[in-house]
Amino acid sequence: MKTGTTPAPAPLHTSADLTITDITITPIAFSDPPLLNAVGVHEPLVHRVVIEVRTANGLLGLGECSGGRSRLENLALGANAIKGVSVFDTTRMEQLINHALDPGLSAFERAAVFSAFEVACLDIQGHATGRTVSELLGGTVRDAVPFSAYLFYKWAEHPALDGRPAIADEWGEALDPAGIVRQARKMISDYGFKSIKLKGGVFPPAEEIEAIRALREAFPALPLRLDPNTAWTVETSQWVAGKTDGLLEYLEDPTPGLEGMGAVASTAPMPLATNMCVVAFEHIRQSIELGSVQVILGDHHYWGGLRHTRELGTICETFGLGLSMHSNSHLGISLAAMVHVAAATPALTYACDTHYPWNGHNDVVKPGALRFVDGSVRVPTGTGLGVELDREKLAELHQQYLDARMTARDDTGYMQRFDPDYSADLPRW
Amino acid sequence: MKTGTTPAPAPLHTSADLTITDITITPIAFSDPPLLNAVGVHEPLVHRVVIEVRTANGLLGLGECSGGRSRLENLALGANAIKGVSVFDTTRMEQLINHALDPGLSAFERAAVFSAFEVACLDIQGHATGRTVSELLGGTVRDAVPFSAYLFYKWAEHPALDGRPAIADEWGEALDPAGIVRQARKMISDYGFKSIKLKGGVFPPAEEIEAIRALREAFPALPLRLDPNTAWTVETSQWVAGKTDGLLEYLEDPTPGLEGMGAVASTAPMPLATNMCVVAFEHIRQSIELGSVQVILGDHHYWGGLRHTRELGTICETFGLGLSMHSNSHLGISLAAMVHVAAATPALTYACDTHYPWNGHNDVVKPGALRFVDGSVRVPTGTGLGVELDREKLAELHQQYLDARMTARDDTGYMQRFDPDYSADLPRW
Ligand SMILES: [Mg+2]
Ligand SMILES: [Mg+2]
Repeated sequence: MKTGTTPAPAPLHTSADLTITDITITPIAFSDPPLLNAVGVHEPLVHRVVIEVRTANGLLGLGECSGGRSRLENLALGANAIKGVSVFDTTRMEQLINHALDPGLSAFERAAVFSAFEVACLDIQGHATGRTVSELLGGTVRDAVPFSAYLFYKWAEHPALDGRPAIADEWGEALDPAGIVRQARKMISDYGFKSIKLKGGVFPPAEEIEAIRALREAFPALPLRLDPNTAWTVETSQWVAGKTDGLLEYLEDPTPGLEGMGAVASTAPMPLATNMCVVAFEHIRQSIELGSVQVILGDHHYWGGLRHTRELGTICETFGLGLSMHSNSHLGISLAAMVHVAAATPALTYACDTHYPWNGHNDVVKPGALRFVDGSVRVPTGTGLGVELDREKLAELHQQYLDARMTARDDTGYMQRFDPDYSADLPRW
Repeated sequence: MKTGTTPAPAPLHTSADLTITDITITPIAFSDPPLLNAVGVHEPLVHRVVIEVRTANGLLGLGECSGGRSRLENLALGANAIKGVSVFDTTRMEQLINHALDPGLSAFERAAVFSAFEVACLDIQGHATGRTVSELLGGTVRDAVPFSAYLFYKWAEHPALDGRPAIADEWGEALDPAGIVRQARKMISDYGFKSIKLKGGVFPPAEEIEAIRALREAFPALPLRLDPNTAWTVETSQWVAGKTDGLLEYLEDPTPGLEGMGAVASTAPMPLATNMCVVAFEHIRQSIELGSVQVILGDHHYWGGLRHTRELGTICETFGLGLSMHSNSHLGISLAAMVHVAAATPALTYACDTHYPWNGHNDVVKPGALRFVDGSVRVPTGTGLGVELDREKLAELHQQYLDARMTARDDTGYMQRFDPDYSADLPRW
């Protein structure tokens, strides 16, 4: 025993108590507005997955990740590999999962599979020890995590298709600068965001620059970002970067590839950011050699969980890179994980991306733990992730998944239902 | 509450319980044999510091670091900065300590101060949650951590000086290849080490190469390392590297500086390792640009604690560098911390350095938790670091410190008491 004033407590749970006995992988589908991007338009349903990990002593931890047939197969392999392991042995789990997955799989897919389980295990670690996930990551350096208003060009509704009626939403159409400013006003009014990101790559660059100018005029004090998802050539990117000098805090993925990004960066007056050309640790070395990016958008789903996301932050600090945070369409389990790791990562100094305003009304977590105030989400104070699963909602979204017979996300195929000549070949301009 | 089979337990301690209320910083001195290195000879006493952190609810955590007058001043500033902070908020502590220290201090000294407190706080986190420190770092990837036999040229005794009688030790003299092999046989017989490191930079390089050859002959299967602590020019280093081709798993710090090391690395047949030219995250970028080193010797005292040491591992993996572990003269608190982080860091694939065979008989932790078996130390299984302070020994070593009136380590000055012409100017050959 230690010789403190009072003795250390006996272990709360034995290691055997905290071994993983059961993992439930539940594919779900939730509704999504017709958001436009460089490769098409969001389908009416997003396919995502909820992970429930249970221990011998009945604790439950939650994870969430994007879906698709091959992802589900890989998650099943991963789940099988970590049965019987203590929830505290996440590093060992990563090795076991890597060993269980097809050797040909990308580092990106391996990291995504591990991440879903790591988050669920950290959730359980928090419940088992009476601490929050952010405390298990070294504690918070901010009480609330700022997010940015994530604007999209969009249609007013999903058009009627295959006998299905049209599906409108509360957001209406946004196909020009005025529509984008209108959308920004509503989103900022609803959530209080203090910075703005526009998903571009949809219209010719000059039109998107006009949208940025309109946003700057409407919101003179808010930092702006533009992300065309590699829709532009190097030359077009350099031209846009020149035209938006002084308007953008960063320009995100204007063009494909580390070499192309490096060429744009060599002339761009603002930092370049990415969640496309640097998405795994193995990409960092070359990106630094080429000077491809100045800001990396972390994402715990991409980078292998919460601990590795913090490690990415240390790499960014070490190499003088900025760190921001990427988002795909997601629900509250992922949002809670994002908030915990963002709050615990000093290097993360940009407002994070989130699709939550587009999808959060479908959430599988019970309301209350996650709220936007002035554009920020306070770190949940409950143990673990601090969120609770809504089982009725989970069942409903799972049934929606089954009914939809979804396999993989296909923004391009969906767009081609309405515009058979549509091509997703990039760069487009 | 979560919807597990059983509810999550109530928090074990409230955050207020786990705030730091008291920190004791105890300078100690313990005996050390006359080990020779490139800048002189170890003095009869090592100056080191034991940190005790206590929380509102009476938990105790231990830290240990090297001593010296300015270190003690910086530790006092750091301790003052983190009173009232939760032991789980170590990242915030790092910011508070950095803010409290002189802005002109090196990153290295800042990291060393934070590290001592971070280890103590992780120790308390473990006691508070019933887990080991390695579990709080992501769990172990190895049950036992291998160390290397750390050989030194040495005198048979500390010569009589200032009325003090000569101080002999159980190791005897080692001033030539036969003496080094004799020392290796004893150390390997006592501890079971499976790899060998020779501290060089003491005799002309040709003599030290002969010692390496003698070790290779005596121990054909054991990996060998040579560390002259920058005693050689680039040209000499290149010559030694050529002569020891096939004999060394790595050559450590043959010459000073990132540029010099890069020049040696460009011709050396073996990897170069360092704990001298890359000792903080801010040195990594240039070392990669110059190709200066292929192996970094991590050290949680140097790199800002256990979490940052794991992060260093991720950086090494990301950039294709090896990771080994450095040691200064230390006792069991540091050894326990080294074992926990080494066991939790997948990137660490070399046997770690340790001075414990030279100093461990003076330990301030009670025997039992830390034992070498076949050259490895099993990860302690008690909560936190898993070691307990021996208060009688601590008091004894503190009195020894007071009696010695030590201020800073001075291997060179001590050598000059016996050889007034001795110069520590490097490179020497
Ligand atoms: Mg993006
Ligand atoms: Mg060394």
